[in-house]
Amino acid sequence: MRRILLRVAYDGTNFHGWQLQQNMRTVESELNKALSTLLGVDIQVIGASRTDAGVHALGNVAVFDCDSQIPSEKFAYALNTMLPEDVKVQESIEVEADFHPRHCNCVKTYEYRIYSAAHPIPTKNRYALYTYSKLDLDKMQEAGKYLIGEHDFKSFASVHTQATTTVRNIYDLQVLTELDNTVIRVKGNGFLYNMVRIIAGTLLEIGSGKYEPSYIKTMLEETNRCVAGPTAPPQGLTLVKIDYE
Amino acid sequence: MRRILLRVAYDGTNFHGWQLQQNMRTVESELNKALSTLLGVDIQVIGASRTDAGVHALGNVAVFDCDSQIPSEKFAYALNTMLPEDVKVQESIEVEADFHPRHCNCVKTYEYRIYSAAHPIPTKNRYALYTYSKLDLDKMQEAGKYLIGEHDFKSFASVHTQATTTVRNIYDLQVLTELDNTVIRVKGNGFLYNMVRIIAGTLLEIGSGKYEPSYIKTMLEETNRCVAGPTAPPQGLTLVKIDYE
Repeated sequence: MRRILLRVAYDGTNFHGWQLQQNMRTVESELNKALSTLLGVDIQVIGASRTDAGVHALGNVAVFDCDSQIPSEKFAYALNTMLPEDVKVQESIEVEADFHPRHCNCVKTYEYRIYSAAHPIPTKNRYALYTYSKLDLDKMQEAGKYLIGEHDFKSFASVHTQATTTVRNIYDLQVLTELDNTVIRVKGNGFLYNMVRIIAGTLLEIGSGKYEPSYIKTMLEETNRCVAGPTAPPQGLTLVKIDYE
Repeated sequence: MRRILLRVAYDGTNFHGWQLQQNMRTVESELNKALSTLLGVDIQVIGASRTDAGVHALGNVAVFDCDSQIPSEKFAYALNTMLPEDVKVQESIEVEADFHPRHCNCVKTYEYRIYSAAHPIPTKNRYALYTYSKLDLDKMQEAGKYLIGEHDFKSFASVHTQATTTVRNIYDLQVLTELDNTVIRVKGNGFLYNMVRIIAGTLLEIGSGKYEPSYIKTMLEETNRCVAGPTAPPQGLTLVKIDYE
């Protein structure tokens, strides 16, 4: 038995997220379908990150097991002839049989994109959040610094989180300008349900002047979802990559 | 009677181009509909550039006449509440009553985007052309230089062009890198039917090594559509702006 790792890119707009759901179009179901057709047996992938409906990815990760002798790097090409236009495998490599994409040490990089303009720009709305506010990037960057490190992120998690602990470790958080976009780039080992989108919604309010950057410290201390900013919509979020040790 | 100029941005994916066509969803028909609703009288815009189905715009231009006393800059806001998500007005200003967006001297800037990767990337395909070839930008730039200036562009026009002359003047053509994209930026007073897309298809073949850059000179001299490269698909093309003197 061989274990194959896939790096998967998708446009999340028309998916009900990553995870299998009855009668819903999900990334996981498309991968399972293509792999089962290719290999002629029932295949179920194990994914690294269960992204929400509408969230995009350049490099989510999934693994599957098979007996096939297809050279590992050929899986990407073969699967891409079968997958729909909005999900494509970027790389396929063989890994150790006990490699688990969620139980291994990894660094996940997410980016949240925002653009400011007098009016919405149709060609930007699919991958970025529109705001008419001019954003103060220095304030957003300063606020982001308070989030770096190990904290109880209960204020920054959906009340529907099922995690046993709300303590997480953010390795890095940068607020950058990329062309006309403001990009919030955050790296960590794992994130709570909606955590990156709540961080984005909160930094957006700080960038527009609603709160001072240092108010982030109070938000963390309160461990109460109500004190942080709103959950920013999914289309601005992209899972950029997952690096394993 | 006042004449109002609109700068219009749209995602061309779900439009049958700019120009009015019976029973087809076009940008022009959406603008006419929104303006007629807003003003309570039948309004027909005059557009600057009749972009093809699938081609995007950040700043196409249209004008219309009205008796309304709405301040000119308010039209953009009012129209955007009525227009669909894939077309939004970026600016509305009053112009001279005899200003005609096609008969005035102007510089149109188009950009064609291409990205190279081992596999297609779903979040890029809506606004860029995928190629697995690694592109030689220096060769593309060198080839582009031969196109600058006044030439007979018959080889670079659709055989269905209805223009009385195929002589046009390209003011500038640059091949740039923007993030992971190769961008062909071309400026001119006017372009023949499919001309920018044929230039893009030709530069793509030169960048992938099919022809030497200097072969562009022969292509121009032959004045025969068959000698130039293919017409690149519409989704890579964006009408960026139109500057009037």
